[in-house]
Amino acid sequence: MTQLQEAISGRITKEMEIVAQQECVSVEWLRTEIAKGTIVIPRNYNHNFIPRGIGKRLSVKINANIGTSALQCNLNNELKKLEIAVQYGADAVMDLSTAGNLHEILKQIINHSPLMVGTVPIYSAAVKALKDDLNDIGKLDFEDVFKEIEYQASIGVDFMTIHCGITKRSLSFLENDQRILGIVSRGGSIIRAWMNYNNAENPLYQEFDRILDICEKYDVTISLGDGLRPGANADATDRGQIAELLVLGELVEKARKRGIQVMVEGPGHMLLNEIEANVKIMKSVCKEAPFYVLGPLVTDIAPGYDHIVGAIGGAIAAVAGADFLCYVTPAEHLSLPTIEDVKEGVIASKIAAHAANLVKNIPGARERDKNMSIARKKLDWETMFKLSIDPEKARNKRNASLTENVDYCSMCGNLCAVKIDNLNE
Amino acid sequence: MTQLQEAISGRITKEMEIVAQQECVSVEWLRTEIAKGTIVIPRNYNHNFIPRGIGKRLSVKINANIGTSALQCNLNNELKKLEIAVQYGADAVMDLSTAGNLHEILKQIINHSPLMVGTVPIYSAAVKALKDDLNDIGKLDFEDVFKEIEYQASIGVDFMTIHCGITKRSLSFLENDQRILGIVSRGGSIIRAWMNYNNAENPLYQEFDRILDICEKYDVTISLGDGLRPGANADATDRGQIAELLVLGELVEKARKRGIQVMVEGPGHMLLNEIEANVKIMKSVCKEAPFYVLGPLVTDIAPGYDHIVGAIGGAIAAVAGADFLCYVTPAEHLSLPTIEDVKEGVIASKIAAHAANLVKNIPGARERDKNMSIARKKLDWETMFKLSIDPEKARNKRNASLTENVDYCSMCGNLCAVKIDNLNE
Repeated sequence: MTQLQEAISGRITKEMEIVAQQECVSVEWLRTEIAKGTIVIPRNYNHNFIPRGIGKRLSVKINANIGTSALQCNLNNELKKLEIAVQYGADAVMDLSTAGNLHEILKQIINHSPLMVGTVPIYSAAVKALKDDLNDIGKLDFEDVFKEIEYQASIGVDFMTIHCGITKRSLSFLENDQRILGIVSRGGSIIRAWMNYNNAENPLYQEFDRILDICEKYDVTISLGDGLRPGANADATDRGQIAELLVLGELVEKARKRGIQVMVEGPGHMLLNEIEANVKIMKSVCKEAPFYVLGPLVTDIAPGYDHIVGAIGGAIAAVAGADFLCYVTPAEHLSLPTIEDVKEGVIASKIAAHAANLVKNIPGARERDKNMSIARKKLDWETMFKLSIDPEKARNKRNASLTENVDYCSMCGNLCAVKIDNLNE
Repeated sequence: MTQLQEAISGRITKEMEIVAQQECVSVEWLRTEIAKGTIVIPRNYNHNFIPRGIGKRLSVKINANIGTSALQCNLNNELKKLEIAVQYGADAVMDLSTAGNLHEILKQIINHSPLMVGTVPIYSAAVKALKDDLNDIGKLDFEDVFKEIEYQASIGVDFMTIHCGITKRSLSFLENDQRILGIVSRGGSIIRAWMNYNNAENPLYQEFDRILDICEKYDVTISLGDGLRPGANADATDRGQIAELLVLGELVEKARKRGIQVMVEGPGHMLLNEIEANVKIMKSVCKEAPFYVLGPLVTDIAPGYDHIVGAIGGAIAAVAGADFLCYVTPAEHLSLPTIEDVKEGVIASKIAAHAANLVKNIPGARERDKNMSIARKKLDWETMFKLSIDPEKARNKRNASLTENVDYCSMCGNLCAVKIDNLNE
């Protein structure tokens, strides 16, 4: 039985106990929230790791996307990215590989990952369908997608992004409300291409029950993809995006009724002052399902620095109620991230999540900041480093500027406000 | 006559004309807002440069702090930082030097700066007073501070941070509402040390009229420093901070009555959800004076990444109404920033300011993002680079990952959502 089915039946699982302990909440409260669907614990029966919960009142989680692409295909590199993501505090990784031996890569990532692993199964079928001509996407066989979902579930994938909300009806809104940047979700663009070519409805929507059947067998959490998410702030919160969200809301209820854990993915690019509204509309339409946001990116002009742009949007979204942040790296919009980009992306996302955890008063969050402040007061550098999000960088940055052993730093030298103030209290 | 005096007299100055054109506002509207004190144009009679306005409904401005310290004292380095700050879009620099020939350094920075230049004049007097023993701060001669203000004004400083709000009364609140990190403003800690040692009121408060006399002679804009700003999010929005703000509110009105341009500095460290309230309280208490914020920093645990922490807080503050953001660099809390740190700090701050300009619908802001999105749709990389906040980094990041000349990027390779979507519209 899935975590949701167990919760509905009133049973407390080992996973619930672990998560309740991690989050300092009562396991009975956790069970009732899982039963309502406001919290998920993505954990495939076939993947052995320490699970984490995502959702209502829990600490904000972050995900790091890794995986190969046609122009950068090296499994060892991707495993190193996984290692870095774990080291700097990611709660999940998604393998978005699109080149190489995809099944072998995914198996290796699952084997090496102490974190939940997510995928977008349609990529594999699209890579298979795609020869030289991009128009071949229309010839993609959706049976391959269902087979891939089943295969990935069988080898232990914990959550899958599935773009079930792109329907003829939701797409119709795009036609009458033109966007600048159209569809920027890979899954979304593939499905629209297929629907156009075959003049047919999205099979992932029409045959949602088949997906639920598979997910039930392995307790895979569905992450309902937002194929129509805006890729430009000028396109944000348009009718296409909202039309898809309405479909996702219905599918959330359908999945819950079958006992399948489900979360919902969200935008994307949008102006800072639209973020809170987007989170609240999603939470209302999708009946408080856990919300997994990509960014949001509050400006489009900062390629090379989109981890900062995403941290601004992510922090605001998380304070407004988003539960799970997909990291953005400095490579976004430019290239596949390097190992260093993965580190930068995870840290930026972790800062955003922690800023929200402070506001949410998640146990331990304010204490850590308080301890840092106490260490600053004492000019206790070792403790400051220890409490830092990246102790090595903090230590190196301070030490690189010093030639002598002093308790102050090279910013103020001896004219240090803390030192002066310590004499006067 | 100062800009404020001219505006009150109904006269439109050359500076007002320049700013009105920069900001696409009517010069008559601008004049009335300057007359009310909601907008300032910091520009010393003795500093020749293209002025910018700060305040109500104008684009959000950013400041980069530069300057020497005892452990890192090299004028050429500081001039390079100035150059980098200008290159990446700073609107102002502050020279916070505390080592070397301070007057010579300041003169050089003013001579080389095409931007408004700010200072904290008390630093110079403190450096003079301070020998080996930090307790010597109490022997600082405040006549030296007034002389320094006069000297700096005479050589062209456009705005000065002066900590007039630390009074016996505002300090009394600290005693009864203990902080973790006390006073973290250098100016604030110096003044408290002096007040304790001499058991006297803050001369910068008591003799505020003398400061106004000097500022009037050169049209120096006063930036009322927040000596009691919180240095830890646990200390934020406490009674000491608010007590000082009340003093600043009164001094704003006093300055305005004399025709002296004035802005107000604000925190500091605080939780994300306190930022909006802080901006609104300041705007109310200080009668809509331009608000110059330091950060705010929404967590204390990210030394090495405080530019990201400050960008989160700065963007939110600017959307809530802050007018002027002081950058934070990756070196904050660790060391004097390097040239590279200055670049990172300016860019992070610029991202925050631009995110707010988009929300405020500042002329040109949304158009730039829209043009970026159009370029993305066309896979027009040259235009994307041109519109980027750091064209060189964007170009290098894309190119480093490519071995062949293709129109897609190494993130998705040919499986590019934009390319697929372009075939299907």
